[in-house]
Amino acid sequence: MKFVIQRDRLVQSVQDVMKAVTSRTTIPILTGIKIIANDEGVTLTGSDSDISIESFIPKDEGEHEIVSVIQPGGIVLQAKFFSEIVKKLPMDTVEIEVHNHLQTVIRSGKAEFNLNGLDPEEYPHLPQIEEGNAIKISTDLLKTMVRQTVFAVSTSETRPILTGVNWQVANGELNCIATDSHRLAMRKAPVEIQNEASYNVVIPGKSLNELNKILDDTTEPVEIVITENQVLFKAKHLLFFSRLLEGNYPDTSRLIPSDSKTELVMSTKEFLQSIDRASLLAREGRNNVVKLSTLDGGIVEISSNSPEIGKVIEEVQSQSIDGEELKISFSAKYMMDALKALEGTEIHINFTGAMRPFVIKPLHDDSILQLILPVRTY
Amino acid sequence: MKFVIQRDRLVQSVQDVMKAVTSRTTIPILTGIKIIANDEGVTLTGSDSDISIESFIPKDEGEHEIVSVIQPGGIVLQAKFFSEIVKKLPMDTVEIEVHNHLQTVIRSGKAEFNLNGLDPEEYPHLPQIEEGNAIKISTDLLKTMVRQTVFAVSTSETRPILTGVNWQVANGELNCIATDSHRLAMRKAPVEIQNEASYNVVIPGKSLNELNKILDDTTEPVEIVITENQVLFKAKHLLFFSRLLEGNYPDTSRLIPSDSKTELVMSTKEFLQSIDRASLLAREGRNNVVKLSTLDGGIVEISSNSPEIGKVIEEVQSQSIDGEELKISFSAKYMMDALKALEGTEIHINFTGAMRPFVIKPLHDDSILQLILPVRTY
Repeated sequence: MKFVIQRDRLVQSVQDVMKAVTSRTTIPILTGIKIIANDEGVTLTGSDSDISIESFIPKDEGEHEIVSVIQPGGIVLQAKFFSEIVKKLPMDTVEIEVHNHLQTVIRSGKAEFNLNGLDPEEYPHLPQIEEGNAIKISTDLLKTMVRQTVFAVSTSETRPILTGVNWQVANGELNCIATDSHRLAMRKAPVEIQNEASYNVVIPGKSLNELNKILDDTTEPVEIVITENQVLFKAKHLLFFSRLLEGNYPDTSRLIPSDSKTELVMSTKEFLQSIDRASLLAREGRNNVVKLSTLDGGIVEISSNSPEIGKVIEEVQSQSIDGEELKISFSAKYMMDALKALEGTEIHINFTGAMRPFVIKPLHDDSILQLILPVRTY
Repeated sequence: MKFVIQRDRLVQSVQDVMKAVTSRTTIPILTGIKIIANDEGVTLTGSDSDISIESFIPKDEGEHEIVSVIQPGGIVLQAKFFSEIVKKLPMDTVEIEVHNHLQTVIRSGKAEFNLNGLDPEEYPHLPQIEEGNAIKISTDLLKTMVRQTVFAVSTSETRPILTGVNWQVANGELNCIATDSHRLAMRKAPVEIQNEASYNVVIPGKSLNELNKILDDTTEPVEIVITENQVLFKAKHLLFFSRLLEGNYPDTSRLIPSDSKTELVMSTKEFLQSIDRASLLAREGRNNVVKLSTLDGGIVEISSNSPEIGKVIEEVQSQSIDGEELKISFSAKYMMDALKALEGTEIHINFTGAMRPFVIKPLHDDSILQLILPVRTY
């Protein structure tokens, strides 16, 4: 194998596939990046066997030559060193050449690295996914939907299925749901689906977090192909594979209360900042709990108490309070996570009593919903 | 005590004195910030008993009122909470009031914090330093001199005196020297001294690092007062006290070779980048060692070898090589530290053999010097 490549394009592709590479793997060759050069260009692959990322660098783009392949072939190079080396090479172009015995020479200007490579034939094959029913969605909408739900997945392995986000596709709509059984985040949006296919799968939260880091903020479409145990995201020159979680995701629809006893409308920012302040002292306590009480005149009181350190009390002027008087306690962290995920300057909170889950939504927008279970303190 | 203060000024002062506060102290009250309000303004103090920082916020500045003291007095508040709270308060002004039993109310808009305070009488007194022979130096020169030497102090407590920087003041000149016995950094500059006083003290590296974080980059003068066991840095509205290290600093002057067998002149940046690349592989080895060899035609070869991973070899074109041929090995980290500390685009390296310390200086500048001991590999 021998090719000459634009360094900045190589650096970018290496950074992308590195997102899948971990040093904590039981399969030694997965600490490497697979490099394959052929007539079309150069393909890099990184994988931790849960996530696999493939980045393609085409031979040329318009009239600009990006790669010049002198001899096709392949090699696997230690990801940790290869990524550091390409970043620090002195010139705009890099030459990579494999000699006998997998010895690989990386040359740029007067700098010459010799790395011991591994046999690309021994690198695990990527999942074979048939080009079938693809779901189409714009990249920035996909990223927003991931961001608005993935934070609510469980970080505990007691119920592994809850570490993923439930994706339900039906009737031209994608519905993303995450819950750790103390709070729930839901976001839906219309998508383009071929053949009216429907799916109900669970994608690991970790995979979606990595996907969001790697995708650019563009309106370009991403194609999503779902199979029995894999999901593939196809962006320009980029393939992102993730395994799916096995098992049945709980039916969350019945968790969401439809009635309401107390309704608040507030400014998202003001409310968030006041919860943030109250949590400064609450954080020291066991569970980071703040209290919310409705007062007369549309005033909402936020308070928290940490006997050793002190207490904080704050009044927030709401736009409206309707229904029963309420005193309720909840996790400041869950509330801040939920408020940060919501788009919109005003929110609507529906309570059905101090002991029942409550629902937060942007005003006049039903595509997103955050649900939080209160904490018993009164 | 009761006063109303501009929040941004309070935040800045709290951030400054926080640099001295640590949660790992054996004196519980030192986890707090002391606040004293009097007719002149408000004074904040933080200390870990090695370093103490006092920041003064004057009543007014020109025609702008900054503090309005309603009742003089004092309190000590938990630094961790107080600093977080003032940062997140909603309004531009803050009211701080001490009630009975040291209960302190912090009020801003509709937010009200109640903190349990501590008695300011129990806060340790700052060192008493007589206004005597002050050394005057511009802030940015002081910061540069610290930056160019402090990185070379020892991080090991086997010889505690080497964890400090040796400051020698004599004949209108300040000379700063740091060494960890493997490398040495030296920087001197003229300073303004009253009464032709002379000093030879050792300031903890940690204190100088904190000092550099707290001082603004200005040409305003800093006054330095040195006593038997303390040093005081006085900037505008800021006092920074540090204890001195006890013991005799080794005589480093005889370590610096005056002769030279091989002389190199090179571009600082090119040399630094090539050492950086060579160290990518060297870092994996035991000691991060790179080799330098002089070749014909003014070429310097930098190389390193890590049998498991691979090797790197690079040629750097020097401006000149004079004297004997040379092969020498040294720590890439020490060399990069030294090169980053030097100002100037070209450096001069004087070798006196593969086993002897060598000296790096900017071309045509004798105010700064970096010395490195080689590593035996040949």
